[in-house]
Amino acid sequence: MNVPNLQIALDQNTLEDALGIVKQAGPAVDVVEAGTILQLQVGNVAIKCLRKMFPDKIVVSDTKCADAGGTVARNSREAGADWMTVICAATIPTMKSAKKELSDLQVELYGDWTWEQAKAWRKAGIDQAVYHQSRDALLAGEVWGPKDLKVVKQLIDLGFKVSVTGGLNVDTIKLFKGVPVFTFIAGRAITGADDPYIAAKKLKDEIKKYWN
Amino acid sequence: MNVPNLQIALDQNTLEDALGIVKQAGPAVDVVEAGTILQLQVGNVAIKCLRKMFPDKIVVSDTKCADAGGTVARNSREAGADWMTVICAATIPTMKSAKKELSDLQVELYGDWTWEQAKAWRKAGIDQAVYHQSRDALLAGEVWGPKDLKVVKQLIDLGFKVSVTGGLNVDTIKLFKGVPVFTFIAGRAITGADDPYIAAKKLKDEIKKYWN
Repeated sequence: MNVPNLQIALDQNTLEDALGIVKQAGPAVDVVEAGTILQLQVGNVAIKCLRKMFPDKIVVSDTKCADAGGTVARNSREAGADWMTVICAATIPTMKSAKKELSDLQVELYGDWTWEQAKAWRKAGIDQAVYHQSRDALLAGEVWGPKDLKVVKQLIDLGFKVSVTGGLNVDTIKLFKGVPVFTFIAGRAITGADDPYIAAKKLKDEIKKYWN
Repeated sequence: MNVPNLQIALDQNTLEDALGIVKQAGPAVDVVEAGTILQLQVGNVAIKCLRKMFPDKIVVSDTKCADAGGTVARNSREAGADWMTVICAATIPTMKSAKKELSDLQVELYGDWTWEQAKAWRKAGIDQAVYHQSRDALLAGEVWGPKDLKVVKQLIDLGFKVSVTGGLNVDTIKLFKGVPVFTFIAGRAITGADDPYIAAKKLKDEIKKYWN
């Protein structure tokens, strides 16, 4: 089983806050993400900075694209992104248009999606999925549990490379032991730490402990 | 029946293109929208410019927010937006967090939402809905028809103020005659015209012809 990637999600409100953090934590992660909040605040300069600062890492544009897939994907690619997210509510034509511009798309699973849809996404060539505990759901008291693991495994069985995210920290990584997770996405567990580099390194060490 | 609003959707890739167009067309519309593509490209400066350029018009932040509703809505409000969009796949906690920051939310209907969800959105205090023909669906050959009108009417019956959008032009406005549409959203029909002001004015005149 491959060692899962560690991805840092940058959802700061300002470019300077995001870049200050990623300058520190970046060397300890595999994937750097220009978060939705950050992009809505500052635009594609966030992606451009990550590309230049980390030429050898994977850069993700978390647009949660719902429409105009071709344009949004082209813009993300031209700014330097390797991967881009599309929301599960996007239509198949939107996903296909995006895929023409950027082959590595991640469908973001929020709300009431169905397995029938998941099969349609695979058929449309989407090979990554992001399984969430939504930030707001976490704030409302939701926690990671067997029901989540079951869904993650089923997605993997469908052929998706699955990223998991939402309130992950060094204590929750081990819940996924034995599951071939593709990428763990951490936000505040890294960005809110006194030392983002140490926090990221601890997460990666914890991942290496259970997957090797 | 009230005369529906006319909204211009600005989905240019650059601020200068968007502002050049809206400087012309703005006086002929009721609502100006910082589109998703534009915000992802340039950030919240798009909303800020619209607010300053059109202090008396309604400004919409089309974030299609899927998560972190509180933060995204606060950012949109602080930049000057009156309304903000949330994607139908967002969870109810996300919508409720957004609503605490910005009372006028519009749920964007893409993909396979259900009437049960629509009732839950109303219960969560969402009073606007945006019914789409997705740009990519239109490119794939979808057209406006009785099935769309039926859904729009049902949404109105549930208590939503309904905006309609997607490939609208002077020829398609009349299809909605007799339906109390809240807002018609036009993009390329205005932004792609040789004279965006004349194009917007013709749309508004067409609306006034059928609703008065």
